[in-house]
Amino acid sequence: MCEANAYVYKDGVEELYLENVDVMKPEQGKIYLKNLFGEQKVFEGDIREISLLRHKIILEKR
Amino acid sequence: MCEANAYVYKDGVEELYLENVDVMKPEQGKIYLKNLFGEQKVFEGDIREISLLRHKIILEKR
Repeated sequence: MCEANAYVYKDGVEELYLENVDVMKPEQGKIYLKNLFGEQKVFEGDIREISLLRHKIILEKR
Repeated sequence: MCEANAYVYKDGVEELYLENVDVMKPEQGKIYLKNLFGEQKVFEGDIREISLLRHKIILEKR
């Protein structure tokens, strides 16, 4: 499968935020995320980095 | 493979921008992209939407 896990980066540490992310949509300073199972989350912050080959989305608070 | 293609959305049309994207990194209002083959591009604009299952990254000029 080609989904990725989303992590929140803080002080050098990456903490799991949402697994198996399919859709991501930046919206007015927030990031809307939806995963394979329809679970939805809204992160208040930015995308720091995405690596699809490593299946990794790194988010960061502003 | 789990990379995605990046498209630029304009006037309802999606135009291919970079194939086989691995890494994406927002930087000061620009989006840095690198693909599987090491090709790099910097897009001046925003991420509109990402769907990993559809292997699709949609970018948009500001």
